[in-house]
Amino acid sequence: MKSEIISIGDEVLIGQIINTNAAFLGEQLLLAGMPARRTVVVGDEPGEIADAITAAWTRSEVVIATGGLGPTHDDVTRSAITAMFDSDLVFSEAVFADVQAFFERRGRTMLPVHRDQALVPACAEAIRNPVGTAPGFHIRRDGKHLFVLPGVPDEMKVMTTSHIMPLLRSICDTRIAVRTLQTTGIPESNLADLLGAPDSLPDGVSLAFLPSTYGIRLRISARDTRQGEAEELCRTASALIAAKAGDFIFGESTTTLAEVVGALLRDRGLRLAVAESCTGGTLAAMLTDVPGSSDYFNRGVVTYSNESKIDILRVDESILLSHGAVSPLVAMMMAENVRKSAGVDFGLSTTGIAGPGGATAQKPVGVVWVGFSSSDTSFACKYLFGEDRIRTRQRASQAALDLLRRHLLGFPRSSHIVSETVILT
Amino acid sequence: MKSEIISIGDEVLIGQIINTNAAFLGEQLLLAGMPARRTVVVGDEPGEIADAITAAWTRSEVVIATGGLGPTHDDVTRSAITAMFDSDLVFSEAVFADVQAFFERRGRTMLPVHRDQALVPACAEAIRNPVGTAPGFHIRRDGKHLFVLPGVPDEMKVMTTSHIMPLLRSICDTRIAVRTLQTTGIPESNLADLLGAPDSLPDGVSLAFLPSTYGIRLRISARDTRQGEAEELCRTASALIAAKAGDFIFGESTTTLAEVVGALLRDRGLRLAVAESCTGGTLAAMLTDVPGSSDYFNRGVVTYSNESKIDILRVDESILLSHGAVSPLVAMMMAENVRKSAGVDFGLSTTGIAGPGGATAQKPVGVVWVGFSSSDTSFACKYLFGEDRIRTRQRASQAALDLLRRHLLGFPRSSHIVSETVILT
Repeated sequence: MKSEIISIGDEVLIGQIINTNAAFLGEQLLLAGMPARRTVVVGDEPGEIADAITAAWTRSEVVIATGGLGPTHDDVTRSAITAMFDSDLVFSEAVFADVQAFFERRGRTMLPVHRDQALVPACAEAIRNPVGTAPGFHIRRDGKHLFVLPGVPDEMKVMTTSHIMPLLRSICDTRIAVRTLQTTGIPESNLADLLGAPDSLPDGVSLAFLPSTYGIRLRISARDTRQGEAEELCRTASALIAAKAGDFIFGESTTTLAEVVGALLRDRGLRLAVAESCTGGTLAAMLTDVPGSSDYFNRGVVTYSNESKIDILRVDESILLSHGAVSPLVAMMMAENVRKSAGVDFGLSTTGIAGPGGATAQKPVGVVWVGFSSSDTSFACKYLFGEDRIRTRQRASQAALDLLRRHLLGFPRSSHIVSETVILT
Repeated sequence: MKSEIISIGDEVLIGQIINTNAAFLGEQLLLAGMPARRTVVVGDEPGEIADAITAAWTRSEVVIATGGLGPTHDDVTRSAITAMFDSDLVFSEAVFADVQAFFERRGRTMLPVHRDQALVPACAEAIRNPVGTAPGFHIRRDGKHLFVLPGVPDEMKVMTTSHIMPLLRSICDTRIAVRTLQTTGIPESNLADLLGAPDSLPDGVSLAFLPSTYGIRLRISARDTRQGEAEELCRTASALIAAKAGDFIFGESTTTLAEVVGALLRDRGLRLAVAESCTGGTLAAMLTDVPGSSDYFNRGVVTYSNESKIDILRVDESILLSHGAVSPLVAMMMAENVRKSAGVDFGLSTTGIAGPGGATAQKPVGVVWVGFSSSDTSFACKYLFGEDRIRTRQRASQAALDLLRRHLLGFPRSSHIVSETVILT
């Protein structure tokens, strides 16, 4: 079965609001076994709304439209659709009771305009809104389904999961299984090389590469009429990919690298401290974004000035002068000294040129040394991350976490990205 | 003139990626005076891509498509469009030189697949990609324009602002003037109250409230065929609003509060250090996201454990035990001690319950004390930021910066959000 999503609202079209509704619905439709083939965004204009819905209705069996159902003058979806289906608006006592109950719960006064929220197209069945005033509606015709929901994300979500999804599951016997593997430390093209031709995967499995600042996510999906088989196909494909991409894979789904490293540290009762120069707090923030990180994250220092590197980290002034702050020796001393002063198991550090200023011929914008220190080893790795300041800071933080993950799991260091490694202990 | 946006990629359609590209392009097209009438999202399927582009191309003078230009097998946009325009791919030496230079800058090895990035449809002009390997292209026909860009947001953005926007501005004589004022420290409904009825603004001016984690942005826009008049209307409206919202406005456009505070510090030759507990590096990262912040940002410490608060910040252990780490006294001591140990002019600190764990009856999730210290005053302010961990950390960091901004500009502390203030000097 085919499905489409229609988002209605000027504010989405002009970028005032990011279309998170379509992302939510896209995922739900995929899980229901009828992935959306198209999403269309139109403004609050009856002709455009009717056009978009008519075209989707012609192509697909299931259409979900959101937005433009509120009580104000720019909410024209309901009347556009009523006209399109040559129907009339009728007053629904049941919906009116819901609207009244909503205002009572909030202790707010109902205005005349809210009474009109109980008007529903005669050709439709109302979908009750448990968290707002605008009902949705559902039109069935010739085995096709049009669902229309309010655009407020919380209202749209609860109405989708409580009303639409059970119905879609009952009419569609295809299931899609999805697994996402997350990699870091390897560029997209090298990863594609490593995995080889897509036909090495079982029939019926698709593989997509989803790049982000932090690495490439691999989305494996399989479609089947029996849930078990699709899941099994995904599992097999996932194992095949894991055998090839091995230690570049750090987790599944939406897990962050900081969560993975945090879980490893917590399980083993180990603790971490970090010393940051070019990442300026980004690494500590990634670690402490994880709830419960105080179990293993002891402290961080952002030694942005040479003075603070000397003060807090006891980095030797003569080394700062002779080697420069952006150097493997300083990176290692930062990692080692923060580890020792905190009395913890691991120290990580970053020092580099995030840019746009500060570059020299030997040290271009994007160069970062990441330092690592444990009781038995210290080393520093050099990375080249490109010209974007914010991205360099994020990628350097991710690289530091990956050094620790690889150390904890006994993996070798990544052969990609890192262009030079110095081991001094 | 009419415009449309087409986003290409299964990952967008199935909700794995939220379509921020379309929001960015929607805003840009609005600014160019040709607001998008429709956005369409299709998957990585040549037939669907050609269908969507053909339909948009029939209806509108300007079409911008993004996505599916990378080097892997699921990147099919280029071939779909080449076929649609009955053209061929030709090798571009100029693009190839860009791709080579990209790999040299990164110190990475170019693979055979990257050579193909230099293939461009013969009917198109290449749009150079300064931050990635996939070029965009531009097809002109019968006074219409089709732009095709990579889907990686940073690449798409820079190519839009540097190449497409100047061209669109030259072909469209309608101008929309836009000014955005950024506020922080005041909830949306209070701000609306403060500004009064929208009809107090000049005719032809629209005002939109755009809420974000960091505050409410006020977008003022006016449309005119003569640039001067629209600009003038926006300026007048902006002055009227500034007179009412006064010290809640910290800047214009996309300026961050960290940039504003940074510029104030630099101008006056003053320096800052921060001590973070619940924000865990977020505040330091916000400050150091700004290029050149080493001029005024001396150091940060992330004292996540009580032990590190005692070690690094010399917070009295008995006070930690009697008052708790989340207390005004500890917030003030953290700010004062980091200022003194760094030998700088200002210290800022955060200590709170970001959640989900750690709450007590007296200290619910979302409570944060922000500390401030200068040579002549120390104080702490209490905030209640709600249940979302990440948002609380961001809002607490923003609140800390706003305390410093208000201090530097001689403004009183915000009467909103802050539910309690203790001044102990």
